Amino acid sequence: MTSYRALTFAPLSRVALVGGTHGNEMSGIFLTRHWLKSPFELQRSTLTVTPVLANQPAVERCVRYIDRDLNRCFTSEILQLDSKDGLPLEVCRAKELDRLLGPRGSEEGMHLIIDLHNTNANTGNTLIINNSTNHFCTHMASYIQRTLEGYECQVLALELKDSNLYDLSSVARHDLGVEVGPQAHGVVRAENMERMRKIVQTALDFVEMFNQGVEFPECDLDIYRHVRNMDYPRDADGEICAVIHPERQDRDWLPLHPGDPIFLTLEGQTIRFDGDRTVHPTFINESAYYEKKTAFSVTERVRVRLPPIHRLREGATLGEGASQ
Amino acid sequence: MTSYRALTFAPLSRVALVGGTHGNEMSGIFLTRHWLKSPFELQRSTLTVTPVLANQPAVERCVRYIDRDLNRCFTSEILQLDSKDGLPLEVCRAKELDRLLGPRGSEEGMHLIIDLHNTNANTGNTLIINNSTNHFCTHMASYIQRTLEGYECQVLALELKDSNLYDLSSVARHDLGVEVGPQAHGVVRAENMERMRKIVQTALDFVEMFNQGVEFPECDLDIYRHVRNMDYPRDADGEICAVIHPERQDRDWLPLHPGDPIFLTLEGQTIRFDGDRTVHPTFINESAYYEKKTAFSVTERVRVRLPPIHRLREGATLGEGASQ
Repeated sequence: MTSYRALTFAPLSRVALVGGTHGNEMSGIFLTRHWLKSPFELQRSTLTVTPVLANQPAVERCVRYIDRDLNRCFTSEILQLDSKDGLPLEVCRAKELDRLLGPRGSEEGMHLIIDLHNTNANTGNTLIINNSTNHFCTHMASYIQRTLEGYECQVLALELKDSNLYDLSSVARHDLGVEVGPQAHGVVRAENMERMRKIVQTALDFVEMFNQGVEFPECDLDIYRHVRNMDYPRDADGEICAVIHPERQDRDWLPLHPGDPIFLTLEGQTIRFDGDRTVHPTFINESAYYEKKTAFSVTERVRVRLPPIHRLREGATLGEGASQ
Repeated sequence: MTSYRALTFAPLSRVALVGGTHGNEMSGIFLTRHWLKSPFELQRSTLTVTPVLANQPAVERCVRYIDRDLNRCFTSEILQLDSKDGLPLEVCRAKELDRLLGPRGSEEGMHLIIDLHNTNANTGNTLIINNSTNHFCTHMASYIQRTLEGYECQVLALELKDSNLYDLSSVARHDLGVEVGPQAHGVVRAENMERMRKIVQTALDFVEMFNQGVEFPECDLDIYRHVRNMDYPRDADGEICAVIHPERQDRDWLPLHPGDPIFLTLEGQTIRFDGDRTVHPTFINESAYYEKKTAFSVTERVRVRLPPIHRLREGATLGEGASQ
């Protein structure tokens, strides 16, 4: 077995905890409002944690967004737009958040953004990272996964190139999306809020330990790698003409083999998966994805070897085998 | 035991099946769209069934309503408003639907409106009637309840006086609300759609049998009678400061005794029910009711004796012991 050389990362002193990126995903909204009044449970000795409510107008109306999905507005193209009157609300807010929490790619921004989401899909606890090549993030996910007692956590890697980043957490040096489901949008369920709270606490504990010099050794991590999105079957008018098959509903992450049922028409006809290999669907029947023409996301399960990581020693500069 | 005198009702030849009264409650929307194209399964020999999509603009945007809740717009006050520019969209639509399907209280309107709804609350299958004194409706509910194999159905009576009617189905002579949960708004789940479809089929079968002269004998029916709505605990700013307690979440219809946990604050404090008798909560944590300041509806369970009912004989006029 190959042994990997340790990677070093600069310590993280600035962390943003973001709720309300989608204004109807209530666990993060309730927690963020609570933390803005009572931030005590977020305190750690080596870092400053800032709670942020990302889209106040959408939160007030309890809708995902006002003009467009804020969490798709952090593209280079949008962030470079000149501020002029008439830009959609979320475009303005994305540019503002990039200034407040970034700017992306700069030294002065947040070292980590933890962005809090819910889904009505039966995803359980999902840790989303933009890229599995960022081994600070993979180690953080691995630590949360094995530390959270009684909770299963899946890790979803979007595998975005730097030029294709689009989400709020990408503004920081490191990113973690926390997705807790199932929970209908517009609803807060005590048990889901508690799960999210524990994930956040554990993530902050990880950062604290890392900053204090704890080395995280080489290990394996099973991740789900995003491959593509699958639309619903549609009729000649473009209307959805089949729904998620009852045998697939709520079976997020479980293997979908070629020939397995995926959709059911209103006439009772089963439509089967015509892929040529086994995949792992997630975000099955998420309400916000109907308009994105996504019945579910297709992922593949892979085992990734994480190299050991530790904090960059004080006074040292980033050298070979190091990354920031 | 008292034996009740039979009640007679005129046959029902015009039935409207309404979906999309709330534009994000998807079972009824999908079924209505399907029936508008393929109405064959609705055909019965003694009645005409008309599918109606109630709020097209809200359906297109996949929101409950555009300006205000359509299903609260069928009050006498609103229906009597002069049509002028500037009325909210749903007020205009309510007046239009009253003309199309009623007018309420007239002879020429629909004999029955079946209005199709979903809730994210764990209500299971619920049959909602405006008043348990309408024994055509109570018998229809009783028939559906005992005929639907493998499905439990609860009956909720709103017990509204004629002067306080507000919902779409009240436009017709007889009314049936079908509420299927749990289902997140904006989502269609195959299994829920199938349950709703079977309830509708069974309701139409009942009307057909009734029209054909079948007598429905005296029987008992357990109903949940709406008493009041209970708000979330709120802080000095009016913000919700406690969520549904995990021990109450999803326990719609089950008895809530004085002293039982109902809410949990974000600090972890349990708030207990301070009522003086056992009640049966429902619509627990329904997302659309946050803005209505309703954490759940309080009902009481009562057993009602239904008199026998049969069709008014041809040529007969309504006499004593009869009602239309």
